[in-house]
Amino acid sequence: MIARPQTPLLDKVRIPADLKKLSENDLPQLAQELRSELVDAVSQTGGHLGAGLGVVELTVALHYVFDTPDDRIIWDVGHQAYPHKILTGRRDRIRTLRQENGLSGFTKRTESEYDPFGAAHSSTSISAGLGMAVARDLSGGKNNVIAVIGDGAMSAGMAFEALNNAGALDARLIVILNDNDMSIAPPTGAMSAYLARLGSGKAYLGLRDFGKKLTSYLGKRADRAITRAVEHARGYVTGGTLFEELGFFHIGPIDGHNLEHLIPVLKNVRDNGKGPVLIHVVTQKGKGYAPAEAAADKYHGVNRFDVITGAQAKAPANAPTYTNVFAESLIREACEDDKIVAVTAAMPTGTGLDLFGEVFPNRTFDVGIAEQHAVTFAAGLATEGYKPFAAIYSTFLQRAYDQVVHDVAIQKLPVRFPIDRAGYVGADGATHCGAFDTTFLASLPDFVVMAASDEVELRHMVRTAAEYDEGPISFRYPRGNGVGIDMPERGSPLEIGKGRIVREGTKVGLLSFGTRLQDCLAAADELSAAGLSTTVADARFAKPLDEDLIRRLARSHQILVTVEEGAIGGFAAQVLHFLAHEGLLESGLKVRPLVLPDAFTDHAKPEKMYADAGLDATGIVRTVFAALGHVASAQRA
Amino acid sequence: MIARPQTPLLDKVRIPADLKKLSENDLPQLAQELRSELVDAVSQTGGHLGAGLGVVELTVALHYVFDTPDDRIIWDVGHQAYPHKILTGRRDRIRTLRQENGLSGFTKRTESEYDPFGAAHSSTSISAGLGMAVARDLSGGKNNVIAVIGDGAMSAGMAFEALNNAGALDARLIVILNDNDMSIAPPTGAMSAYLARLGSGKAYLGLRDFGKKLTSYLGKRADRAITRAVEHARGYVTGGTLFEELGFFHIGPIDGHNLEHLIPVLKNVRDNGKGPVLIHVVTQKGKGYAPAEAAADKYHGVNRFDVITGAQAKAPANAPTYTNVFAESLIREACEDDKIVAVTAAMPTGTGLDLFGEVFPNRTFDVGIAEQHAVTFAAGLATEGYKPFAAIYSTFLQRAYDQVVHDVAIQKLPVRFPIDRAGYVGADGATHCGAFDTTFLASLPDFVVMAASDEVELRHMVRTAAEYDEGPISFRYPRGNGVGIDMPERGSPLEIGKGRIVREGTKVGLLSFGTRLQDCLAAADELSAAGLSTTVADARFAKPLDEDLIRRLARSHQILVTVEEGAIGGFAAQVLHFLAHEGLLESGLKVRPLVLPDAFTDHAKPEKMYADAGLDATGIVRTVFAALGHVASAQRA
Repeated sequence: MIARPQTPLLDKVRIPADLKKLSENDLPQLAQELRSELVDAVSQTGGHLGAGLGVVELTVALHYVFDTPDDRIIWDVGHQAYPHKILTGRRDRIRTLRQENGLSGFTKRTESEYDPFGAAHSSTSISAGLGMAVARDLSGGKNNVIAVIGDGAMSAGMAFEALNNAGALDARLIVILNDNDMSIAPPTGAMSAYLARLGSGKAYLGLRDFGKKLTSYLGKRADRAITRAVEHARGYVTGGTLFEELGFFHIGPIDGHNLEHLIPVLKNVRDNGKGPVLIHVVTQKGKGYAPAEAAADKYHGVNRFDVITGAQAKAPANAPTYTNVFAESLIREACEDDKIVAVTAAMPTGTGLDLFGEVFPNRTFDVGIAEQHAVTFAAGLATEGYKPFAAIYSTFLQRAYDQVVHDVAIQKLPVRFPIDRAGYVGADGATHCGAFDTTFLASLPDFVVMAASDEVELRHMVRTAAEYDEGPISFRYPRGNGVGIDMPERGSPLEIGKGRIVREGTKVGLLSFGTRLQDCLAAADELSAAGLSTTVADARFAKPLDEDLIRRLARSHQILVTVEEGAIGGFAAQVLHFLAHEGLLESGLKVRPLVLPDAFTDHAKPEKMYADAGLDATGIVRTVFAALGHVASAQRA
Repeated sequence: MIARPQTPLLDKVRIPADLKKLSENDLPQLAQELRSELVDAVSQTGGHLGAGLGVVELTVALHYVFDTPDDRIIWDVGHQAYPHKILTGRRDRIRTLRQENGLSGFTKRTESEYDPFGAAHSSTSISAGLGMAVARDLSGGKNNVIAVIGDGAMSAGMAFEALNNAGALDARLIVILNDNDMSIAPPTGAMSAYLARLGSGKAYLGLRDFGKKLTSYLGKRADRAITRAVEHARGYVTGGTLFEELGFFHIGPIDGHNLEHLIPVLKNVRDNGKGPVLIHVVTQKGKGYAPAEAAADKYHGVNRFDVITGAQAKAPANAPTYTNVFAESLIREACEDDKIVAVTAAMPTGTGLDLFGEVFPNRTFDVGIAEQHAVTFAAGLATEGYKPFAAIYSTFLQRAYDQVVHDVAIQKLPVRFPIDRAGYVGADGATHCGAFDTTFLASLPDFVVMAASDEVELRHMVRTAAEYDEGPISFRYPRGNGVGIDMPERGSPLEIGKGRIVREGTKVGLLSFGTRLQDCLAAADELSAAGLSTTVADARFAKPLDEDLIRRLARSHQILVTVEEGAIGGFAAQVLHFLAHEGLLESGLKVRPLVLPDAFTDHAKPEKMYADAGLDATGIVRTVFAALGHVASAQRA
């Protein structure tokens, strides 16, 4: 390990008030030290690096010009906020990023008063900032509200909704468009092409140009009347950028790494701002760290790495990830069926669809950060006989819930939903924890809802979904690696609504939905050793339920424990509802539904989190023993 | 009743193929006949009128120029599609609109091959159309895809997402922007102001202008290179409309009531179109029917009415609507607490916030059709100490589910969610049936989830929500009228997580969540008369549960029936989960959770629908008798 970087200026800055004591001339050096500190910290923790490197100067400039925390800076998504964390009292904990009990990898209200709004999902900052700006105006306050949002995040509908509303309200709000022409993957979409046109001349606005624009801004009410008269005479508007059409005063593009440009512009907007302003800042993701600049993903998210070489620690070569198994299985099916197409909302790598896209570029659609559109676009494809797989993470699918209900389920269209990141996800924390999908999907009529218990089952489910053409179908699987079992070359279609008995017993029934199956099997060993002969079943389907299987488990066991990696209201709710109406709860059967805890849980290692939640083998055994009052008899056995 | 209008031309048109046999000169008369038929039909059925009146000429022109159903016409929302229904084989059923077993008030795939995509919620048409266009291109097809979307619907993020993606894909797709400067209420938002500027000159594009634009369109690839070079040299773009910035060829504005303009433009686009085209058509909502034109809402949605006078049948003066009780209660609370603010997503009248806005105009925010933004905007207000009530219909809240989870619940922000249209809604059908909110909210940690059992309870819940400041809180109530009981002048705060016993008994426990309480009481009368002494409880809270109440019901009754106006996974799931973990299901207690059927149900009268679902008094009694095998003993009693 090499020594930590020398950071004499940064050492003087614990909070933004300290920063203001520096002269402007010191700021470039401070930015360099901040960048070194950031690289060093993330080299130890892993995490998001490229985005933070791109906003080092912007972060310094914002905290130098504005008075946080009274002025509110809202970082969209929040993965670019590590430099902000270092400057706002959290440097001493920066090497705990994304570790259990450490700093969050995103902004978080409970972590710091300098984080006025938490994030992790994209494109929320303008809406939240507008709410804060309106609240300020209602209270007669004077503080500034600044939303910093990337160009990728601009493709999401809610950012547009917020711009549209802000323009109409004419509230004093500063939006900084951080245009690095990258979100996680290179962005797609017309907006991105448009921004590229805006920024690609690199004829950044200098101070003189800015002054001219500002004059027109300050006088804009008067000017507007004239402008509109001209527009009306012509019958339609041709002038102005897209943002100006929406009522924003638009400044830029400005070089986001040049403090001599950033600081006067920010000061001017701070001192003279009236309505909504959009400052278009062009930055470079990964800026100032050569290995990041050279990488295709600009070190968006990295493992621990060597600072000198940039070489990242490799994960041990385990079983394949579920993501890759999904992708490879889908490629296999798509070779057989040319109606199979794939849709991603700006997550080609995360979902594995980058692999699919290499084989089937014309059948792969990256629609941008736009989950709502992704789902209804897939529904449109389905009406024409295509078989769309809309691969969206569990928590991001929340963005498209109405489209799932209204455009897919009500019309019973055969859209396939591969749901990655089901259950705990580790370092990304509560915002990415896939807890609710089974609950919000299995409550929908005509939906088929599956969960894979291992990578072979996932392969079967991809085939099952490919062949099932009666209506919507989903299958969930976790982040991380499979269990390492032999894989068939191609999956086999599962019978819809049929689970499987994995191990036969007589007293205890464990009914698993998802990858807790392995823990159920381990629990069964322990229970059987304690004299409690245990059946383990893999439900496969939360909807339709395997009613025969559940009847059998209920009738021939003393206790039935359901186990799932999801919240209340999901698989267990379906089982309990069925048992109640069948009258199977009245014979003394003990039922214990194990679900994720009713709490948003901070980031930690998933296995630790499942243990804490009582969803590991030990927890399952504990539940059975407690229900059966069985400590004594277990000891006797 | 007056005689039906004379419609000699329309009588010859059963399907669009018949329409094509007419000469262009006949079309204005056909449009007039279609308009008369529409007015006459809706005068008998009630329903959406203003929107249909506005697109009579556009509907005629589209079906005259395009070859439906091979060409796909997607009507956004679908409430403007009555004229389309008349021209596409459904005229003989047009006077069954929105009646049980009659035509849907929206487009519907199962109703006609001329409805390629169903709708009812707004802003889905461009996404669906793009899916169809991409499918066509993948298959080598030649058909046209036309999405017709209103200016109000354009404010929703998903419309922007779809435009953005369509512009990037450069797919051959026709978007018709039906700009009537009205959605349901006059629209708000910068986009709307922008469209007004575009259209307000009324210098509609004639044929000669169109020809010029088309030339530039056909040659646009070459032109673009030059344009871009100029743009780059200048450093930023100033030309083009917002839609052109997003990659669309933009035609218009065109007078949407002038068939001589509409038809050649549509033909040109049909014959020469390449990439995505947006045709901006200006129409007048309510056009051609004087009472509609004169009304503020342009007869958006009407009761049956007299064709001559336009006078609408009045609903009988019953108990106040839940919507009004909510609004008046909130006004009352807002008089006491100046931190209370209200947010609506383009539904001021439907939610009752128009009344609130009359009293507190500065504390009322209509953000446009933009539920995602509405919720996160409310979250921003909450961070600053305000008490936002984000009043969104149950099914429209589905549009903002991720914002509810990610921006409100995870941050435990005290946003209040008044949820109107809970349960069956009658004529609007499955797309508006509020079935899922309890399921998708009660599964979230730290959420308080209430349902009002009558209008007095609703008043209490408004006060409860106003005073509860610990985190998110919701309360649901149905469309329609209260039960007509005396109202307190102001509500009293309820204790969080406490229900109430309404009637004491010993054998049967009925636990109601919501307005089925009245049916539970009627069922209790019947059951008690049959010798089954019945307790009725009003749960009030699905979360947190009143655990003491439920324990008591479970321990001292033979059967416990839960009743709710929602889908599986909601209130009953919470109760069953609790009972299971408490070991209260093991003593022989019979439990019967009654929820909405696992099916999307067509429109009918709500009371009929609840009866069919077994959720009326008769159904509840039937469930109890069946569970207790009690026919004989009931007869003995």
